[in-house]
Amino acid sequence: MRILLSNDDGIHAAGISAMYQAIRDLGDVHVVAPEAERSAVGHAITLSNPLKTKRVSKNGEFFGYAVDGMPADCVKLAVTALLDQPPDLVLSGINLGPNAGINVLYSGTVSAATEGTILGIPSMAVSLATFQDPLWDTAARVAREFTLRILEQNIPKDTLLNVNVPNIPYDQLKGVRVTRMGRSRFVEVFHRRTDPRGNEYYWLDGEMKQFDDEPDSDLRVLEEGYVSITPLWFDLTHESALPRLKEWAAAFEKK
Amino acid sequence: MRILLSNDDGIHAAGISAMYQAIRDLGDVHVVAPEAERSAVGHAITLSNPLKTKRVSKNGEFFGYAVDGMPADCVKLAVTALLDQPPDLVLSGINLGPNAGINVLYSGTVSAATEGTILGIPSMAVSLATFQDPLWDTAARVAREFTLRILEQNIPKDTLLNVNVPNIPYDQLKGVRVTRMGRSRFVEVFHRRTDPRGNEYYWLDGEMKQFDDEPDSDLRVLEEGYVSITPLWFDLTHESALPRLKEWAAAFEKK
Repeated sequence: MRILLSNDDGIHAAGISAMYQAIRDLGDVHVVAPEAERSAVGHAITLSNPLKTKRVSKNGEFFGYAVDGMPADCVKLAVTALLDQPPDLVLSGINLGPNAGINVLYSGTVSAATEGTILGIPSMAVSLATFQDPLWDTAARVAREFTLRILEQNIPKDTLLNVNVPNIPYDQLKGVRVTRMGRSRFVEVFHRRTDPRGNEYYWLDGEMKQFDDEPDSDLRVLEEGYVSITPLWFDLTHESALPRLKEWAAAFEKK
Repeated sequence: MRILLSNDDGIHAAGISAMYQAIRDLGDVHVVAPEAERSAVGHAITLSNPLKTKRVSKNGEFFGYAVDGMPADCVKLAVTALLDQPPDLVLSGINLGPNAGINVLYSGTVSAATEGTILGIPSMAVSLATFQDPLWDTAARVAREFTLRILEQNIPKDTLLNVNVPNIPYDQLKGVRVTRMGRSRFVEVFHRRTDPRGNEYYWLDGEMKQFDDEPDSDLRVLEEGYVSITPLWFDLTHESALPRLKEWAAAFEKK
């Protein structure tokens, strides 16, 4: 099996090394990741600049390619140009911090897996739900188990797995829950400052708020100590709004 | 009515001026847009740097605020900090180039409207389906008609309107169609080059390909000369994959 591994915390992050160590014996693992942190970049890609690549070693051996682009760029470039053949699986992570609720939209980690899915390759994003004292081993073991399961039974077509792991010891995990993307999101506050030359600028700040999340939402089960696994895709059509929108647009449709 | 107007081509782009002229008499119009082009940035936001703002004039009168950030930043900042009260409507565009098919995921224009929707504000993105010789008047007239319609009858909850307008004279438009986001997308090619110092770099190139698009897909109706209006939202959960994924995960769920 050929596995492409990427992330959004950058090729030098601890999380991608933890993932690499956990799955390296399962196939040919090719690492292509941003050269530096690219968090909250959403599904950005690089159109107006070329992408530079650099070979990166860790502990004295070749580890992978650093790209001065976005996570989605890394997957496009790897699949289309860097690898001899397309990979059988795209893995993204392990991200430091959860990618759940509305914040999934801003996630570079998820965008790498989304890009794999768009290219027709089974893909999985893995995130560890903490910003400090990460227990990488827990997420790495879960990532390995799920990778083995994908080998055994493929995931549904046009679907990527968005996996979030609680930051608790592996033995304390309560289990796995299949979830929906919740409505929780950051509620922003901007702090206004003035620089020494009198120009205004704003710092983004905020806190995570729960908004009417269903019991099967990603963040809810994470808080309860379960691994959350959400099937995502790339179609933003609001199906259930179609009939009402047709009424809305009827005056124009008649034209 | 208070209208917030943003885009991803930047505050100096012709498209945002065309939109402004078309709707300025419909309410208080507040322009908050990126200071320069931010295309293909997806739903990126700025976390690690502060956002600087600058007052911009056009034709000798105050036009709006330029922000050195992403389209989604502009909407967050305007709603949370720059405007006295939240707007009643967020408009994004007019974008130079279509935002249809899979490429919607990469669109900064759509992300500004998505951000408005996340914040609970009715939102619409408007794009003109050409990269050259734009007939702004066509898209501006459509944007105005739809804005008036939103005043008359609000759009469904949690839904943004993604409007694409063919680049033909207004009188030649065939009408309006409510559509789904299609499967068409760019198929990438990377051109490999070597710089004068021997470092490799890659230029992204490609062409738009149609992939099994349904007759009611956005790009399909655009090509036929209709205005396309797609209801989008911000939930990427692949609902129809949930039952199969539950089977897939059953071994773990039992744990």
